[in-house]
Amino acid sequence: MQTLWDERYAQRTQRMTSSVIRELLKLTEKPDVISFGGGMPAPELFPVPQFLDASREVLEESGAQALQYGPTEGYRPLRELIVRHTARYGLNVSTDNVMITSGSQQALDLLGKIFINVGDHIAVEAPTYLGALQAWSAYGAEYVPVPTDGEGITVGGLEDALRAGPKFIYVLPNFQNPTGVTLALERRRRIVALADRHGVPIIEDDPYGQLRFEGEHQPALVTLDGDGRAAGQPAYRGNVIYLSTFSKLLAPGIRLGWVVAPPEVIAKLVQAKQGADLHTSTLNQMVAHRVARGGFLDEHVRRLRRVYRERRDVMTAAMQEHFPADVRWTHPAGGLFLWVTLPGRLDATELLHRAVEQKVAYVPGAPFFPCGGGSHTLRLNFSNAQPERIREGIERLGRVLRLALAE
Amino acid sequence: MQTLWDERYAQRTQRMTSSVIRELLKLTEKPDVISFGGGMPAPELFPVPQFLDASREVLEESGAQALQYGPTEGYRPLRELIVRHTARYGLNVSTDNVMITSGSQQALDLLGKIFINVGDHIAVEAPTYLGALQAWSAYGAEYVPVPTDGEGITVGGLEDALRAGPKFIYVLPNFQNPTGVTLALERRRRIVALADRHGVPIIEDDPYGQLRFEGEHQPALVTLDGDGRAAGQPAYRGNVIYLSTFSKLLAPGIRLGWVVAPPEVIAKLVQAKQGADLHTSTLNQMVAHRVARGGFLDEHVRRLRRVYRERRDVMTAAMQEHFPADVRWTHPAGGLFLWVTLPGRLDATELLHRAVEQKVAYVPGAPFFPCGGGSHTLRLNFSNAQPERIREGIERLGRVLRLALAE
Repeated sequence: MQTLWDERYAQRTQRMTSSVIRELLKLTEKPDVISFGGGMPAPELFPVPQFLDASREVLEESGAQALQYGPTEGYRPLRELIVRHTARYGLNVSTDNVMITSGSQQALDLLGKIFINVGDHIAVEAPTYLGALQAWSAYGAEYVPVPTDGEGITVGGLEDALRAGPKFIYVLPNFQNPTGVTLALERRRRIVALADRHGVPIIEDDPYGQLRFEGEHQPALVTLDGDGRAAGQPAYRGNVIYLSTFSKLLAPGIRLGWVVAPPEVIAKLVQAKQGADLHTSTLNQMVAHRVARGGFLDEHVRRLRRVYRERRDVMTAAMQEHFPADVRWTHPAGGLFLWVTLPGRLDATELLHRAVEQKVAYVPGAPFFPCGGGSHTLRLNFSNAQPERIREGIERLGRVLRLALAE
Repeated sequence: MQTLWDERYAQRTQRMTSSVIRELLKLTEKPDVISFGGGMPAPELFPVPQFLDASREVLEESGAQALQYGPTEGYRPLRELIVRHTARYGLNVSTDNVMITSGSQQALDLLGKIFINVGDHIAVEAPTYLGALQAWSAYGAEYVPVPTDGEGITVGGLEDALRAGPKFIYVLPNFQNPTGVTLALERRRRIVALADRHGVPIIEDDPYGQLRFEGEHQPALVTLDGDGRAAGQPAYRGNVIYLSTFSKLLAPGIRLGWVVAPPEVIAKLVQAKQGADLHTSTLNQMVAHRVARGGFLDEHVRRLRRVYRERRDVMTAAMQEHFPADVRWTHPAGGLFLWVTLPGRLDATELLHRAVEQKVAYVPGAPFFPCGGGSHTLRLNFSNAQPERIREGIERLGRVLRLALAE
């Protein structure tokens, strides 16, 4: 359809790309395709009865408030809950440090809006979360990729990257999307110290941190950067902005995330959010608060950990059985994803077409690399499908890989 | 709190301003202040029982879908409902023309993101909706103000403005925010023809169009621009992008708006929305769809019209009784707002402090003018307070005005 709008797009639309993942989701919506492509939680674990009760209670007791406009920074009791939650993980913040966002994706967008000028460099893990690249490329960000290994972002790589003078460092320390890798404790300390020495702030994105199946919880960068001289728990110093979300703990369909940041940054984020969507759904915030409070969240997260751990184990056992010997993969201690490295001559994007013919799907790894590379990598999600489907899907994928390698 | 973020804000943050209205909302939250300041619907009219039933049904029947990630363009049955709704108002579009947004505010933000380069000019009514200025200023928009009168945007004024070569025209034809004025039919035709002749597209923002208390429904600009040569109803030509919202028809707390645009523009908006918040709450879309379908929306809107009409009448009667003779105001045929013009020597922003001392609040008119002016104007909301409070508030405001004029 030819319209007067055709010639009027802003320059930044040339930098905006559609998410490969989301377009893929559409292709694989047919029920006979087993998709390891999305980042979706297990729908059968959603706490539907709790949402039913909470919705009823909120609407019966406070319907007029739940359906009315609310404050841009978010529903205060939910912000208070996040303050308590943060304290349990070892950091003292106040409600002035917390803003509710429409999913964690919105936090990335608003942070881009308030911090990124065209041409600004951001130091990111290579590979990193595609949605962050998508949000920030629209503001003209450029990326300094930092190599990662089985213990996360490399310290030497970060040191090199900091010479480019990035505006900030973006890092996902726990069960990273896409690799599933966790940043080692000693590296966490060194990265925080290095950033501090170079005067470069950090955005820490932690959607999965609570979904740990095994091993010890590792302190967040924001906690390690805390001011230990304060009495009791570390006080918030403000140089690390911390993001998390209810999408993986309760449900993504309610679109609720949060930011922990210095009050001055929160004030700018609030201004940006006023222009972006006024505020996040009051009803959803009140319902999520009611579902999460009083211990249910902990109990529910324990269940998620148990189920996701089983699915990871089912997936890796099936890979062991069905994948060719020279294919390697990560063994995540939590989260939703693992990362597969194929022999270098295979191209995961090309292979995807064959895989979909065989009714199995994944996400090719290349788009997660901001500056190229990764053509022989791919990401598998193990949280969404049930064990039998995981086994079947991995068997199909193994067949595709063996055939490709035999050519 | 001094942090490493302090020196790192993007240039655009200097153009971002906090909404005077939303900051004011905070000041006037005390229950003894009668506030005509916000743009809030009457909370006692929210269809709480319908939301209760719909939430229960959606969660019981489709809990896993309602709590899961959904498509960026929106929940298909809700988009279909909007297609039918649009057809009733005289325009044929398809679901490819419809995207769901997180409130109408998000549509403004995403349109700014895909169309506005720094320094682009937008032709806007003077005064116009503050939230649009807030959204677009962040992208570096500049404004060509078009004078308005009791029949809306002036044709001669628009003709002058079009000489500046604006990227698009932004207009709120029905019960405009802030003035309450409706664009006259003959002007609608002339404005559509003028825009067409100059090759300048239009964004038509219509949050209140269905809330008409009296007089005839006027065709939307998007309908007048329709291709009448098609059989039956006009087909969508695509040069007018049309925005509306469930905020005033059902409830603002669910944050649901929509855009009607050419498929190519929808595709860009979808890309932008992926980076901004992935998608709008699945649960809220499914619940709103269930509340709105099957005739309830029409019935509910009839009730809103009756109540808001009464409140407008109560307010204007009280103004007649209590306001000094040389104060003038508009008499809106629908919507939520009316507009007051004080004698030129009074400054509505200065007066606001005295008003709040007298426990009554409004929004000064000046911020609604993108390029200055309007210091002696103010906006009053008549939808939120009940009649007795409206009478009392107007009496208080009348006292403030009389005292100020007596000085």
